[in-house]
Amino acid sequence: MSELSGLFAPERVAVVGATDRKGSVGRAVMENLVADFEGSVVPVNPTDDRLFDRPCYDDVAETGADLAVVVVPAAAALDVIESAGEAGIENVVVITAGFGESGGEGTAREEALVDLANRYGLNLVGPNSLGIISTPSGLNATFGPRNAESGSISFMSQSGAFVTAVLDWAADRDIGFNDIVSLGNKAVLDETDFVEAWGADPGTDVVLGYLESIEDGEAFVRTARDVTAETPVVVVKSGRTEAGAHAAASHTGAIAGSEAAYEAGLDGAGVLRVESAEELFDFGAMLAGQPLPNADGVAVVTNAGGPGVMATDAIGDADLDLASLGGETRAALADVLPQSASAHNPVDIIGDAPVERFERALEVVLDDPAIGAAVVIACPTATLSFESLAERLTALGETREQPVAVCLMGGSSAEEAAETLAAAGMPTYFDPARGVRSLEALYDYRAVRRREYEEPTTFDVDRDRAREILERVEGARDNRLGIEAMGLLDAYGIPTPESDIVDSPGDARRVAEGIDGDVVMKIVSPDILHKTDVGGVEVGVTDADVADIYETLITRARNYQPDARILGVQIQEMVDFDDGVETILGLNRDPQFGPLVLFGLGGVFVEVFEDTTLRVAPVSKSEAASMIDDIDAAPLLRGARGRTPVDEDAVVETIQRLSQLVTDFPAIVELDINPLVATPDGVVAIDIRLTVDPERL
Amino acid sequence: MSELSGLFAPERVAVVGATDRKGSVGRAVMENLVADFEGSVVPVNPTDDRLFDRPCYDDVAETGADLAVVVVPAAAALDVIESAGEAGIENVVVITAGFGESGGEGTAREEALVDLANRYGLNLVGPNSLGIISTPSGLNATFGPRNAESGSISFMSQSGAFVTAVLDWAADRDIGFNDIVSLGNKAVLDETDFVEAWGADPGTDVVLGYLESIEDGEAFVRTARDVTAETPVVVVKSGRTEAGAHAAASHTGAIAGSEAAYEAGLDGAGVLRVESAEELFDFGAMLAGQPLPNADGVAVVTNAGGPGVMATDAIGDADLDLASLGGETRAALADVLPQSASAHNPVDIIGDAPVERFERALEVVLDDPAIGAAVVIACPTATLSFESLAERLTALGETREQPVAVCLMGGSSAEEAAETLAAAGMPTYFDPARGVRSLEALYDYRAVRRREYEEPTTFDVDRDRAREILERVEGARDNRLGIEAMGLLDAYGIPTPESDIVDSPGDARRVAEGIDGDVVMKIVSPDILHKTDVGGVEVGVTDADVADIYETLITRARNYQPDARILGVQIQEMVDFDDGVETILGLNRDPQFGPLVLFGLGGVFVEVFEDTTLRVAPVSKSEAASMIDDIDAAPLLRGARGRTPVDEDAVVETIQRLSQLVTDFPAIVELDINPLVATPDGVVAIDIRLTVDPERL
Repeated sequence: MSELSGLFAPERVAVVGATDRKGSVGRAVMENLVADFEGSVVPVNPTDDRLFDRPCYDDVAETGADLAVVVVPAAAALDVIESAGEAGIENVVVITAGFGESGGEGTAREEALVDLANRYGLNLVGPNSLGIISTPSGLNATFGPRNAESGSISFMSQSGAFVTAVLDWAADRDIGFNDIVSLGNKAVLDETDFVEAWGADPGTDVVLGYLESIEDGEAFVRTARDVTAETPVVVVKSGRTEAGAHAAASHTGAIAGSEAAYEAGLDGAGVLRVESAEELFDFGAMLAGQPLPNADGVAVVTNAGGPGVMATDAIGDADLDLASLGGETRAALADVLPQSASAHNPVDIIGDAPVERFERALEVVLDDPAIGAAVVIACPTATLSFESLAERLTALGETREQPVAVCLMGGSSAEEAAETLAAAGMPTYFDPARGVRSLEALYDYRAVRRREYEEPTTFDVDRDRAREILERVEGARDNRLGIEAMGLLDAYGIPTPESDIVDSPGDARRVAEGIDGDVVMKIVSPDILHKTDVGGVEVGVTDADVADIYETLITRARNYQPDARILGVQIQEMVDFDDGVETILGLNRDPQFGPLVLFGLGGVFVEVFEDTTLRVAPVSKSEAASMIDDIDAAPLLRGARGRTPVDEDAVVETIQRLSQLVTDFPAIVELDINPLVATPDGVVAIDIRLTVDPERL
Repeated sequence: MSELSGLFAPERVAVVGATDRKGSVGRAVMENLVADFEGSVVPVNPTDDRLFDRPCYDDVAETGADLAVVVVPAAAALDVIESAGEAGIENVVVITAGFGESGGEGTAREEALVDLANRYGLNLVGPNSLGIISTPSGLNATFGPRNAESGSISFMSQSGAFVTAVLDWAADRDIGFNDIVSLGNKAVLDETDFVEAWGADPGTDVVLGYLESIEDGEAFVRTARDVTAETPVVVVKSGRTEAGAHAAASHTGAIAGSEAAYEAGLDGAGVLRVESAEELFDFGAMLAGQPLPNADGVAVVTNAGGPGVMATDAIGDADLDLASLGGETRAALADVLPQSASAHNPVDIIGDAPVERFERALEVVLDDPAIGAAVVIACPTATLSFESLAERLTALGETREQPVAVCLMGGSSAEEAAETLAAAGMPTYFDPARGVRSLEALYDYRAVRRREYEEPTTFDVDRDRAREILERVEGARDNRLGIEAMGLLDAYGIPTPESDIVDSPGDARRVAEGIDGDVVMKIVSPDILHKTDVGGVEVGVTDADVADIYETLITRARNYQPDARILGVQIQEMVDFDDGVETILGLNRDPQFGPLVLFGLGGVFVEVFEDTTLRVAPVSKSEAASMIDDIDAAPLLRGARGRTPVDEDAVVETIQRLSQLVTDFPAIVELDINPLVATPDGVVAIDIRLTVDPERL
């Protein structure tokens, strides 16, 4: 894939399928291009000699263009693209619909289009795209009714209609764009390509996206990790809910990856995820216009107590830090404020505050090195002019390094002031909660910037032994393994209880005698998944009872499922659960994001509380540690109610060892260690289930 | 308290402290009243003869007014109010500040004001209020810069500045009001009074409130339950977060009740609680303008796939029901839509849809009796006019009984259409998620309407025995009771294990022998709260070991806390926890809301997951049942993973019995049964702790 700069900054654009027929897409694209584009625009249509007051070409190959916009009917599109490719035109935007999204013939057509793009190395947008916009050169190669204002946000959307909606709406809010792409069917160029291109583009300060799917999750994570170290990326990934996923699938035909995988993948990529259109642009405007905070403390300066309380609640909701103002700052505030005002945070400068008092109070709090960001709230009063407040805040913004969220709590009376502030990169809000939420975008992105993606640890393991165990599925009736595969964990240094699998009462007794204390006995069968549910587990068996219990377990299993393959009975050392916490450690492979490591509270609570967290493998040490932080049950591991804390290092190491195992063996399709008992003296894996794909061994 | 209709519909308003001095509050109030009020406005100020072209009175008593608005300085306010009271003026709005909110002298002044109000039976708003508005008579007795548009929302606010902000902002959004009150310090009239008054007011369709505190929670719940059966009440109760509660307390001096109590109290009252200013008015506009849905299914009709998916996600988030369209409806849609459109829900009528297609598709889905509400999403296209869409939707709204949320996804191009729709009571949104969230208001309120507040069950209990046990704290060193008070539960029919408390090893042995199987032994001391933490509990003790263990427990307790009062050792029947779920059942008394019953997952998980729910006591049968629904661990009680479900009826009955106990005895300040073990065969209370206030026995 060549650089995409040619796509957004062409010199000569050919519109293939140009026409002046009213209401046609070809005419709309021509009009948009002719209106603002700095370069030249050439129409291509064999039925016309001149169009839009310029010569019209018969074939795109003759145009000398470096970008072809294709609006011909679907049946003709492939020929046009081939012709463009032959002529060395590298950049193609296919607006034409009737490809993969319409199924049947369209699907075949899309495959042919991909072949052409690959053959000629095309940067191809679409098909079924609204087009692209790039404001630096005035390029508007879309058929939408509005062009974008210029700015530093680049925006991609898997919905063309959403682009038109956003353009219409953003203009009133002084939200400007650098590039915009309607992704269409993403047959060739997809979200990963644009994230990469915009990450390298000095004109783009923020990347926003509306996505319904991510084509190659692993590539996206790799690319976005690099980009988000410098440039914030915010997306709405829709289809979050079951109904939404279904709707997205029928809308774009996208294969819906699991929501949990998207969550883990986007987070692992450093992408900020929001849930609505409003939030997307609230985040975008704040990240584009305001600096990142250099301290945790947030200060509120308000001329109204009630809205100050609302802002404070929102700060609490966002888990931001309402700063306690230091003595020096409070003293300085006291100099600036009347006696009945509050020199505590939220700083209530009271209702009679003129603009000067706002300005001075804000200066004082921003002088405090503990203050990383401020929320300014202005309610309409007789003593305050929103316009002059806007001017002062704009001036202040130029000399200060902290971001400010400005809440102008008025309607039309605040409009002019809002425009002044927006022009200076300071977004405004009516609702204090929304202002605070937007500040949160800056803190969230700051956390992404601070991430260090360390290399995963490589442990010394017995890979050959692990392979041998996995190979047991080759030629077997099915590809699942159970406790008979505990050796896999041994091979990767994950502690397991002393145990053996036996197939006679005598052997059972002999093994039990070799183990200290009572034992646990479990039926071993790949066909019985929930062993406890069928009475397939007995705990605390004395050596004397082992032989009898052996027979009982076998009988129960036979009664439960006569055709189950029974491999024997496992005799296992008793593990003292009393000091331990049952956790679950597992692996799932997601079609988009690849191997995902799962950690959470185990036992019966897994399904009830779903208190688990996922990471894209391989998992580094700090990522493994953060998985413990993520679960609600973390206090249980850390010694809630006088318990002895478990060995957290052992948990962290075990997560990494599992990550290494599943990274080493792509053949492991899914795997659960449940429970992995975490105790003050380390961890021990009690049970395992996995599925192996012999083809990938 | 007399009716408040006189407050909002006076015939003659006296402004005490009227003046024409520029920038003064007295002038602002006069100007606002003179501008729009239908009745007469009389200025009172001994220093002027005429003001605002009318005679000025020396004393409010001479005016013959039925509403006095007081703007004189604080020092003069009490005399004015007394004079008004003497003259039989029942309605007084005190704008003057310098009362309770400023502390010291102001607090004393506010007490005197309350005395006066009680003496004369005044309907007194404030002090420290922005004033009141009532649009039917054009009454604007505030000093704010804007009057309200007329409408059917009545709004109260504990922040005057928020009122001015809302008035400024609402005018642009065509949000109209019936009455508005700035509550000020709520010295006399408070939120409960206005909820009651507006509940009885045919001009009010929706009550909105911004509250930082609720003065008398129990009265509020009683009143609001009645009102919300007919009229929706929506509030922002700020101070939700720790920081917010602190800020609210320092803003209004309100005693911050616990957030959990407010949550339970507002919910119990049928009040819809929202978190931000935007949501408050989104909910208000929808509830004021649109009918309640008469079926669960929500349909989406959109000319753009992507925004349709966003709406679908929002429907999932809101736990609303994205309707599956029936065969008949799909067939009817197929007649109306082009082939490439989707006749499934979300109904994508595709980008070339003209207004007629929107109209027909919407008619078809609204004809489906399973559809209770619709979301219409329109992105700007060449074939669609927002204005004519607005006209069609307005017409449709008049003939249909279902609510519709209209998302016009444009900026200024959508403004005129939005105004047309707002005038017809149809709010519009850019963001589909916000439109869906507003529909949720209707479904939430429908659920309130459907509630039946049945009478709590009265069980046959042994009240005298309970009283005897509670009386043990009289004259005792402290007022806590522990397992020695298990008889309290017996007396109220809550099952407890067989047990006795003994004070010698011999008695211990004797009691244990009388109990089937092994026993549990627990130290009994009001000074040792976490018995397990100090080794004060032994489980599974055989009769032979009982005497030794008795000594051990006493020794451990003595070592742990030499001065602890040790009442003996409890010998308790072993309860099989294996089939049971440990729950917690408790009581707290909140300063505002009174007795709150708590139920949740017990044992070590109480503190980790905080999976508990509260209800204001007394708790009815259906409320008790809903407490089980509320907790995340409900599936554990209901037989998750092949467990036998516990006896839910027994849990529900026990919650009600506890509710009766704490209602019968206000002396019980707090009480915890932890664990209350729920099993398939009923419940059993294992341990109890309570605090008793002997003064209230």
